[in-house]
Amino acid sequence: MSRLFRVAAAQMGPIHLQDSREQTLNRMIALLETSAAQGAQFVVFPELAFTTFFPRWLLEQDKVDRYFEPAMPNPQVAALFERAKALRIGFYVGYAELTPDGHHYNSAITVGPDGEILGHYRKVHLPGSVEPRIGEPVQQLEKRYFEYGNLGFQAFYGAEEWKAPIMGMLICNDRRWPEAWREYGLQGVELMVMGYNSAAYDPNGGTAEDEALRTFHSMVSTQANAYMNATWAISVAKAGVEDGFGLIGASCIVDPNGIVVAQAKSHEDEVLVAEIDLDACQQGKTKMFNFEMHRQPRHYRRIVDQVGVQLPPKA
Amino acid sequence: MSRLFRVAAAQMGPIHLQDSREQTLNRMIALLETSAAQGAQFVVFPELAFTTFFPRWLLEQDKVDRYFEPAMPNPQVAALFERAKALRIGFYVGYAELTPDGHHYNSAITVGPDGEILGHYRKVHLPGSVEPRIGEPVQQLEKRYFEYGNLGFQAFYGAEEWKAPIMGMLICNDRRWPEAWREYGLQGVELMVMGYNSAAYDPNGGTAEDEALRTFHSMVSTQANAYMNATWAISVAKAGVEDGFGLIGASCIVDPNGIVVAQAKSHEDEVLVAEIDLDACQQGKTKMFNFEMHRQPRHYRRIVDQVGVQLPPKA
Repeated sequence: MSRLFRVAAAQMGPIHLQDSREQTLNRMIALLETSAAQGAQFVVFPELAFTTFFPRWLLEQDKVDRYFEPAMPNPQVAALFERAKALRIGFYVGYAELTPDGHHYNSAITVGPDGEILGHYRKVHLPGSVEPRIGEPVQQLEKRYFEYGNLGFQAFYGAEEWKAPIMGMLICNDRRWPEAWREYGLQGVELMVMGYNSAAYDPNGGTAEDEALRTFHSMVSTQANAYMNATWAISVAKAGVEDGFGLIGASCIVDPNGIVVAQAKSHEDEVLVAEIDLDACQQGKTKMFNFEMHRQPRHYRRIVDQVGVQLPPKA
Repeated sequence: MSRLFRVAAAQMGPIHLQDSREQTLNRMIALLETSAAQGAQFVVFPELAFTTFFPRWLLEQDKVDRYFEPAMPNPQVAALFERAKALRIGFYVGYAELTPDGHHYNSAITVGPDGEILGHYRKVHLPGSVEPRIGEPVQQLEKRYFEYGNLGFQAFYGAEEWKAPIMGMLICNDRRWPEAWREYGLQGVELMVMGYNSAAYDPNGGTAEDEALRTFHSMVSTQANAYMNATWAISVAKAGVEDGFGLIGASCIVDPNGIVVAQAKSHEDEVLVAEIDLDACQQGKTKMFNFEMHRQPRHYRRIVDQVGVQLPPKA
C-alpha cells in the first residue's frame, strides 16, 4: 500500500532586526506559492519565522513584546493564512505566542488546507539562560523571554486529503531530545515537523563548535530519531547571517530509515519538495520498532524519576 | 583538563557452527595481545563473542545449552582472563549466561585490569521472536533462547588506572533504543561499550534492507545517542559470513560529539585503538545536555506509562 503526500520545506534566509513584517510576510507568501506550484499540499516554515531570532538580544520587555503574536492568526500575519487557504495548502509555522492572559511561549501551529488550526505546540526544551552571560559576545535568552511549554507532546491527525498522517511538532532544540520524539513515537507518529534557528558557532560562548559540527549535530539527531521512531521528518532552518550572527542551514526531509531525501543547498530562502509515502513507516513500526513487542518500560524509570544526573555509587 | 584513556575495539570475523571453542579463544587472545601491544588498557569484544550467533538456528534446548557459560570465568574461557590479567588489560565481552538456577540471558561483563568483574549486564531489548517464522529463510530466536535482562542499566566506575570513567554497557539491539542510552546518561556515563551481531540483510525476512542500510542504521543510532548523552562509545561487531549468513562490520569508536574517530575496514578480526579524553564529555554535559537545567520529565510520562502505541484521538 502507499499513502502518498506531497510536502515542502520552506527554508528562510536571514531576517534582520530592521526588516519589516510586511517584507518578511511577502517572502513567506512567495515560498508558499513556490511550494504550491510544485504540487505541495503542506509546507513547513522555521521556528520564530515572522521575525529575527530576537532571543540573541538583551531587550527590555516592552521592546520584546513587538515580536510576539497576540492571537493566531492576527492582522499582521493574516495575508499568509489567506493565501494558503486560497491555494488549499497547509503549513507549520513557528512564532512567539503571547496569550490573552500574558503568558509568553515559543510556539508552533499546523494549519490545515481550510485554514483551520490542526495542532498547537509550545516548545518544551528551551535552551540558553535567563540572565545574560557576562562577557559573552552573543546571548541565548530563550529561558528569559519564554515560559516552558505546557501542552506536552500531543500528536494529531493531518487533513484527510493529506491521507490523515499522524503528525507531531517540535521546535529547534527539542529535536536533540529523544524523549520528545519518543512521546510522539508512542502515539504512532508518521510525520514529525519542526523549525529551527541554530547558531552556526558555539552558542555557549566557546570555540569548540563550528558550523560544520553544529550542522552535523542537527542532522544526526534528526536522522537517528526519525529512524528510531519509524517516522518521516521535515526539519527547517532559518539560515544565514542575521545582523552579523550566523545560523546553520541544512533544512531537510528525512525518511523513516533516517535517510535524507531532500536537503537545502543555500543559506537563503529555498524550497524543497518531496512526495512521501506515509506507509513507508510501517516496516519500522511493525518490526524493529514494534514497541508493544520490544519496549521494557520497567527499566526506564530514571527518565521520569529524575531530572539531572545521579552518579553511580562508588565501589 | 584531560583524562586520557587508551581503548581498543576488537572486531571479530565470523565464527562458524563447527569452529571449536579453543580456536575462537585463540583468536580472542590474539586480538587482546594486538590491543595491548598498541598500548590499549581496555578492549571491547562483540556480543556472544565465544560462539557463532546461534539464535539464527532453531535448536533443541540441550543443543543450545552448549553455547552458554555456567559461570564467568569458567574453564573454557579461563585462558582469555588469564592472559588479560597478565597484560593488565581489561575487557568487555558478550556471552550467553546460564545461571546456577537455570536462567538464560544474553549478557556482557566488563573485567578490570586485575581480572575483577566491574560490571555485569543482561540484554534488555531482545529482538526476534519466540516461535520460528514459517517460510522464512533465516530466524532470529533471541526471544526463545533468552529471558529479558533483569539488571536494568546500572552504570559503574572503571578502574582508577583508566581514570575511573563512568561506564555503561549495552548489547546489540539495545543501541537502537534511546531509553537505554538515557538511563546511562542520567548516571553521567562517559564511556558506553557494546558488542553486536547484526544481520547484513533484512532480519525480518523482507527484501527492504541491505547491508549498506543496516550499517547506516547501526552508525546513526550510535552516533546520535553518543552525542545526545555526551559520551564516548565503543561499538564492536562480529562481522562477515557465518555459515552462509552475513553480518555487518563497521565497528567504531565514537566521540561525545557523535563523530567517528576510528572505524573497522574489514569483516574480519581487526583491532582499532584510540586514545580518548574522558573530559571531552564535559562540554556536552555542562551546556547543551545539562540535564538538570533542560530536561522536563513531567512531559515524558508516556515513556514509562505505556509499552506500545496509543493513537491520538480522532477529531
